[in-house]
Amino acid sequence: MQLERRGATFVLGGARSGKSAFAEGLIEASAMDAVYLATGRAWDNEMSARIAQHKERRGAKWTTIEEPLDLVGALQKECSDTKAVLVDCLTLWLTNLMMAERDIETETARLLAAMIEMKGAVVLVSNEVGLGIVPENRMARAFRDHAGRLHQGVAAAAATVYFVAAGLPIKMKG
Amino acid sequence: MQLERRGATFVLGGARSGKSAFAEGLIEASAMDAVYLATGRAWDNEMSARIAQHKERRGAKWTTIEEPLDLVGALQKECSDTKAVLVDCLTLWLTNLMMAERDIETETARLLAAMIEMKGAVVLVSNEVGLGIVPENRMARAFRDHAGRLHQGVAAAAATVYFVAAGLPIKMKG
Amino acid sequence: MQLERRGATFVLGGARSGKSAFAEGLIEASAMDAVYLATGRAWDNEMSARIAQHKERRGAKWTTIEEPLDLVGALQKECSDTKAVLVDCLTLWLTNLMMAERDIETETARLLAAMIEMKGAVVLVSNEVGLGIVPENRMARAFRDHAGRLHQGVAAAAATVYFVAAGLPIKMKG
Repeated sequence: MQLERRGATFVLGGARSGKSAFAEGLIEASAMDAVYLATGRAWDNEMSARIAQHKERRGAKWTTIEEPLDLVGALQKECSDTKAVLVDCLTLWLTNLMMAERDIETETARLLAAMIEMKGAVVLVSNEVGLGIVPENRMARAFRDHAGRLHQGVAAAAATVYFVAAGLPIKMKG
Repeated sequence: MQLERRGATFVLGGARSGKSAFAEGLIEASAMDAVYLATGRAWDNEMSARIAQHKERRGAKWTTIEEPLDLVGALQKECSDTKAVLVDCLTLWLTNLMMAERDIETETARLLAAMIEMKGAVVLVSNEVGLGIVPENRMARAFRDHAGRLHQGVAAAAATVYFVAAGLPIKMKG
Repeated sequence: MQLERRGATFVLGGARSGKSAFAEGLIEASAMDAVYLATGRAWDNEMSARIAQHKERRGAKWTTIEEPLDLVGALQKECSDTKAVLVDCLTLWLTNLMMAERDIETETARLLAAMIEMKGAVVLVSNEVGLGIVPENRMARAFRDHAGRLHQGVAAAAATVYFVAAGLPIKMKG
C-alpha cells in the first residue's frame, strides 16, 4: 500500500469507517509534502467538532486548505511533483455543489480531467452512500445518484482504488 | 471475468454502483445472444427516465423483455444453450411481489430451483440494501429482510458472485 | 477459514447478510465447546421471532447466555481454553448501552482490553450501518458514529476479520 508519486488514489468507505485515517496514512508513509484539502463547511456543531478532531489527528506537518466549491481550481493550484494532496471528502464537495445549484455533470467532468493531468499525487476520499434502503426524501435520492456516478468516474480515472470498512482496506484496483 | 455458457452469475451492488453496466459487459464479452429481462415497472418519471437511459446504453443488439412478476416463467421460456439472460433487477422484482402480496418464500424457492436447471447463462443483478441504519418504516424493514434472504439464496445457487462498488467488481465466489 | 483456538475473530456484515450463520459455522467447524452470547433483548415481536429462529438453527449443542449490558463480564466469565464464544451482536449491545446511558468510549475500551486477554476463542458479530445516506435522526447519526468507531477498534484488536455479504465472506485481515 504505497503511494505513487504521481496519479490519483481513490478511497471509498462508509461513515466512521476509518477512510480518512487510512488516506492520511498513505500520504504520511510517502516522503511527499502533505496537503489537506478540506471540502467540508462547518454547518453545525457536530461538523465543527469533527473538523477540529481530524485536524488535531493530522498534526503540524500538514498544510490545510479549505475549498468548499472550487475543488478543481484548488487541486490545480496545489499540485506539484513533490506534493501529495488529500481531498476530504468528495461527498461533502457534492453537497456543497448541490446547495450552490452548480451543474454536477460539468463539475464531475472537470474533476476527472484534472485528476488525469495532476503532476503530483492526489488521494480522494469519499463516502459510499448507496448500500441502504432507497431514501424516502427526493433530495437524498438525487444525492445518492450523483454520488454513485461521481464514484464510478473517479474510480475509473484513479490508478488505485481502496474500499475501507472497520479501518481495513480492500484493494479494488491497481 | 468470463461468462460461463451455462449457469448463474450474481452481481450485487449499491445504488448507482455500475452493477448493471458491469453485468451487461459480462454478457457482451461472451458470444451469446443477449436478452435483457427487465423486472422494473415505470411507476414515475424518475423510473421511466432510468429505464430509457439503460435501454439506450445497451443498444440494438439486445432483445428486451419486461416481466414484473413471473420472472421464473420468463427465464424458463427464454433460456437456451445460445442465450445469456440479464435479470435487472431482483430488488425491483421483490418490490413487485410484495405489492402484489405474493408469498416471497415460495417465489424465492422457485427462482433458486430455476437457476439450477437453466440451460444457458443467466446474470442476476440486485441491490444490496442492508448496510445502512435500520429503517424506521416497517415495510422497509420487511423488504430489507426479504432482500437479504433472497440474496443469500441466489448467491448459494450461483456459480459466480461479484460485489460491485464504484463500477469495480470484487469476486466473492467462483 | 479455520478458527484459531485462541484470539478474536470479527465478522462484519449487513442486515440479513448471513453473518451470524457464517460465525456459527466457524465455531461448529472447530472442536471447541460452543457458547452463544446473545446481547439482544426482545423489545418486540419482530425481535422475539428472530431470536427464536436463531436459537432453533443453532440446535442443542450450543450453550446460550443472554447479557444485554455487561458483555465484558460475561466474556471474562465464560472464556477458557476449550471454549469458543459467539457474541451476537455488537450493534445490539451498543443499542443497549446507549439506552442505559452508559459511557460508550469506556465500554469500548474495556471490550478491546478483554479481547486481547481472552484465553479461548471469541467470534464477534456486528452490523455495518454506515453505508447508506446520512440519517435525518440525530440519535441514528450518533449510533452510526459509535458503531463505526467500535468496529474500527474491534477490527484492530481481532486477529481475523471477515466482511460478509449475501452469505459469502471476504477476508479483510488475518
